[in-house]
Amino acid sequence: MQLFYTPDIQGKSYTLNEIESKHAIRVLRLNPGDSIQLIDGKGSLYTAQITDANPKRCQIVVQAQEREFGKRNSYLHIAVAPTKNIDRLEWFLEKATEIGIDEITPVLCEHSERKVIKDDRLEKVIVSAMKQSLKAYLPRLNPLTPLNELLQSEFRGKKFIAHCHELDKRQLKNEIPGSLSNLILIGPEGDFSEQELTTALQNNFIPVSLGSSRLRTETAALAACHTCNLLLED
Amino acid sequence: MQLFYTPDIQGKSYTLNEIESKHAIRVLRLNPGDSIQLIDGKGSLYTAQITDANPKRCQIVVQAQEREFGKRNSYLHIAVAPTKNIDRLEWFLEKATEIGIDEITPVLCEHSERKVIKDDRLEKVIVSAMKQSLKAYLPRLNPLTPLNELLQSEFRGKKFIAHCHELDKRQLKNEIPGSLSNLILIGPEGDFSEQELTTALQNNFIPVSLGSSRLRTETAALAACHTCNLLLED
Repeated sequence: MQLFYTPDIQGKSYTLNEIESKHAIRVLRLNPGDSIQLIDGKGSLYTAQITDANPKRCQIVVQAQEREFGKRNSYLHIAVAPTKNIDRLEWFLEKATEIGIDEITPVLCEHSERKVIKDDRLEKVIVSAMKQSLKAYLPRLNPLTPLNELLQSEFRGKKFIAHCHELDKRQLKNEIPGSLSNLILIGPEGDFSEQELTTALQNNFIPVSLGSSRLRTETAALAACHTCNLLLED
Repeated sequence: MQLFYTPDIQGKSYTLNEIESKHAIRVLRLNPGDSIQLIDGKGSLYTAQITDANPKRCQIVVQAQEREFGKRNSYLHIAVAPTKNIDRLEWFLEKATEIGIDEITPVLCEHSERKVIKDDRLEKVIVSAMKQSLKAYLPRLNPLTPLNELLQSEFRGKKFIAHCHELDKRQLKNEIPGSLSNLILIGPEGDFSEQELTTALQNNFIPVSLGSSRLRTETAALAACHTCNLLLED
């Protein structure tokens, strides 16, 4: 069934915006009486029926609402330095959304080569992945944040920093079982600086390794995301 | 240190091919006496020194050879239907090579939308990922193979088929621990046909789920690859 993202849906009736209306009526050629699915990005999956097939203001009526659809039993926040080639960050966003993630914070590090990102474009990638993988929760994308700000921000759960410095590290996969709320920090191509690492440790981030392979930034971020989902899912 | 792929290296001296020579001398501006690293794709990592900085026939002499560099303790063969958009298969190849894989077979299924692939281009992606992640073993890429041929071929180890049909499935993550040789089959966007699934079961493939999320073909293949590496790595 066709799926639409309707973040502002309330009550039993709804009017699709102009773009979605055009897609539903002109592209998909849906008619009054046809059923569609809606997700609000807040956990609800709706089944609805088209009442007015207006190509600019398509009206629908909700027939059923499933709350907490596909709710995960844990919370995952990944903070990652945007890659020089933005495509690599975008695929991480797509794949992490498919696999399961709650919050993403692009962080600005000392060795970051990329210092600007287009939030709206990244948001589109996440929405599209959410629809494609039929998820009802939209992962939260935070604005680009200076690393020090993130290091000192409050987080209820375990905090990890994955880095390549020669230093005692635990294996992330041994830390995750039983830990239902996790913040994992992934550095830029040039890794974190000594100073950044020191500050992270002072702020109770646990230094971890993701395994023996040398991974690119976006691969490391996705591996961390999959590790948490794999080891915490019932 | 600069890394070069030299699959045909033997003995103590070697001459880089014209492309690699040009890269070393004209682009990297290396000089006699400079050290470089070589990988042969068969498990050896060499440290070598440039003896003749010839931009067409750069000669080097091997100073040290490390055998079984980064050898994994398990064997992983993933057979996957090429995606309609070839970029998605290419990124799976890149990421799987980074994370760890031994053999990849693109398979032609009943519901495959893509029926041709460019082996040489895919091979380039794998070689580049191997160099980038400093691995000495080149994953083996087989030619596009009809599914039935693969289903009936010999494999020493556990064989799995990941599919979305309503059918009793085990969780892949519960099957992998202790299983050091695995073949995992990932279907096309349209999933396997009933007939293909039946034939797979007749050939002792174990039906598995990768988790509760609906994953794209290439995401499922990578998730399976990461699951094996995560759960089998010491």
